[in-house]
Amino acid sequence: MKDEMNRGYPNPIAKQDVVTLAHGNGGKFSAELIERFMLPRFANEHLNRLEDQATLAISSGRIAFSTDSYVVSPIFFPGGDIGDLAVNGTVNDVAMSGARPLYLSLALIIEEGLPFVDLERILDSIQKAARLAGVAIVTGDTKVVERGSCDKIFINTSGIGILADNIRLGADRIQAGDKIIISGTLADHGMTILTTRNKLSFENSLQSDTAPLADLVQTMLSAAPNIHALRDPTRGGVAMTLNEFAQQTGLGFALEEAALPINDSVRGACEILGIDPLYVANEGKLIAVVRAQEADSLLTAMRNHPLGQQAAIIGEVNAETSKLVTLTTLLGATRVVDIPVAEQLPRIC
Amino acid sequence: MKDEMNRGYPNPIAKQDVVTLAHGNGGKFSAELIERFMLPRFANEHLNRLEDQATLAISSGRIAFSTDSYVVSPIFFPGGDIGDLAVNGTVNDVAMSGARPLYLSLALIIEEGLPFVDLERILDSIQKAARLAGVAIVTGDTKVVERGSCDKIFINTSGIGILADNIRLGADRIQAGDKIIISGTLADHGMTILTTRNKLSFENSLQSDTAPLADLVQTMLSAAPNIHALRDPTRGGVAMTLNEFAQQTGLGFALEEAALPINDSVRGACEILGIDPLYVANEGKLIAVVRAQEADSLLTAMRNHPLGQQAAIIGEVNAETSKLVTLTTLLGATRVVDIPVAEQLPRIC
Repeated sequence: MKDEMNRGYPNPIAKQDVVTLAHGNGGKFSAELIERFMLPRFANEHLNRLEDQATLAISSGRIAFSTDSYVVSPIFFPGGDIGDLAVNGTVNDVAMSGARPLYLSLALIIEEGLPFVDLERILDSIQKAARLAGVAIVTGDTKVVERGSCDKIFINTSGIGILADNIRLGADRIQAGDKIIISGTLADHGMTILTTRNKLSFENSLQSDTAPLADLVQTMLSAAPNIHALRDPTRGGVAMTLNEFAQQTGLGFALEEAALPINDSVRGACEILGIDPLYVANEGKLIAVVRAQEADSLLTAMRNHPLGQQAAIIGEVNAETSKLVTLTTLLGATRVVDIPVAEQLPRIC
Repeated sequence: MKDEMNRGYPNPIAKQDVVTLAHGNGGKFSAELIERFMLPRFANEHLNRLEDQATLAISSGRIAFSTDSYVVSPIFFPGGDIGDLAVNGTVNDVAMSGARPLYLSLALIIEEGLPFVDLERILDSIQKAARLAGVAIVTGDTKVVERGSCDKIFINTSGIGILADNIRLGADRIQAGDKIIISGTLADHGMTILTTRNKLSFENSLQSDTAPLADLVQTMLSAAPNIHALRDPTRGGVAMTLNEFAQQTGLGFALEEAALPINDSVRGACEILGIDPLYVANEGKLIAVVRAQEADSLLTAMRNHPLGQQAAIIGEVNAETSKLVTLTTLLGATRVVDIPVAEQLPRIC
């Protein structure tokens, strides 16, 4: 790799420079982009081979595979940026199967004119997030499109994780009587994006919760190997995740409003803006559905993990309110938490 | 799945409708998009589970993993569209390792306002291409961005293939004396995009060569198990692929102009427009580097395959012209085929 880095291109990229179409044409500048910006940050035996694909040794008979594109606007926001979001989001989707995420692909679509300082900031963030999540970026792609053909930068990551033989998670395992647990506070990410984008300022500043949940998941599986299902409530929030479960299982999902953990600043912003936190995206939280008998031990294990300190049992599964998500409010009334219909907030992730 | 299809949404999507931001917000319309447009086309046991990741049984100890984003403009062109290009491109990157591609992810970034007829045409094309290539789409993602924030539709696919134990391909295996083989004609895809985008018309209409090469690769590996390296000359064309090999191996790659297979219509367009076909993208061709002793039997096997009928030995590897790609012209002169520098043609794939 050292040899690759010292080729001595005639046109070094200066800090004040911007990405040009030539950086995406597969030629000299594309190679330079990879060698100067990608390899020093993401170097590993797979990526360094510079083939068009990574060849990976797989120690298990089962893998988990997931993909997400990230189009969040703005690309930098309190608590994170499009880079760590793109790592954590896909790591979390892989982890929700119970798998240990190991490998990521990284595909960038860059708008011509993106300053290299912004690109480097995003790549630094990707590097840091990948290291924290314990995943290697093993293959990638960079396209550059003309000004006006995309908005600054879009990122796709796909992830591969290894699944232990005894792990079987999925909506199909959920049963009436199961408890519903959330790993922490609701709506931090979505409210942060909303207020940042619209330049709203609140007394207590909001911050995205973007974080990799794979380690928390492994801790949870050690404490409660029979967890029935895990899912991260991103777009559409807790409301959408539980409605998906309700549709897939035919069961009812009953929530207690009093049990929902919500940061004061987020609660305040939601109240002022008239937004229901159940519908707002999270990027570092998961919902676990688990047998009632295992709920308390699972909760204890979660609360001992840095990313689960505010974990809470927020409701339970029942056989009565078929395919519905319901909420018992603070005043004791019960209402249906329907599937979100209209567009709430585009480009949240 | 039947149950999923019959949920009876109050707002059926009509053919004259367009994609809206609500189709990307993770709510009711997102679910509708998946159930009405994706599942009927791509249904398989993995995708149908509707989890955020696919769980895949892997029968081999090694997999190949690759990703590419597709931003081609125009999205429809003679011989293909962004849909089959996105399937074939990633299938080919996986196949170049010698792996048998099995699974694809499919991530769409759609510009608000894309007509559903265009989306359906692209999805039909993806379905057909996936079937032809023998791959299943097992996980996916759809984002919708505001008008003007992307150009119609961008697609990312990531692919996973299974590698047989005895297969070891890579630039590191290339040796002086090896023959360089191309599987067919040069520059069809790139010249098609260029002339279509600029509405140039030529007497003999050009057509993209987009095709899945995985079956050809398996045929080749049966005929010549010791192939040293395979790569598909996409962006940057044959010139870039061979320059990458030259940089990675430190060897020289000498081409014979007279041996390069080029369709007459492509040759004509290149001459009129002053474009060197060596630098133009291909989307259904591969370059094989193989020991001289195996070259003829490999060539015979390739020519017996529908996608290799015009395969040709186009040059050989030497230890003299270190790190250079050279071309002996029809007139007998030899020139260096350098790495492309300036932007040739953006958004070719």
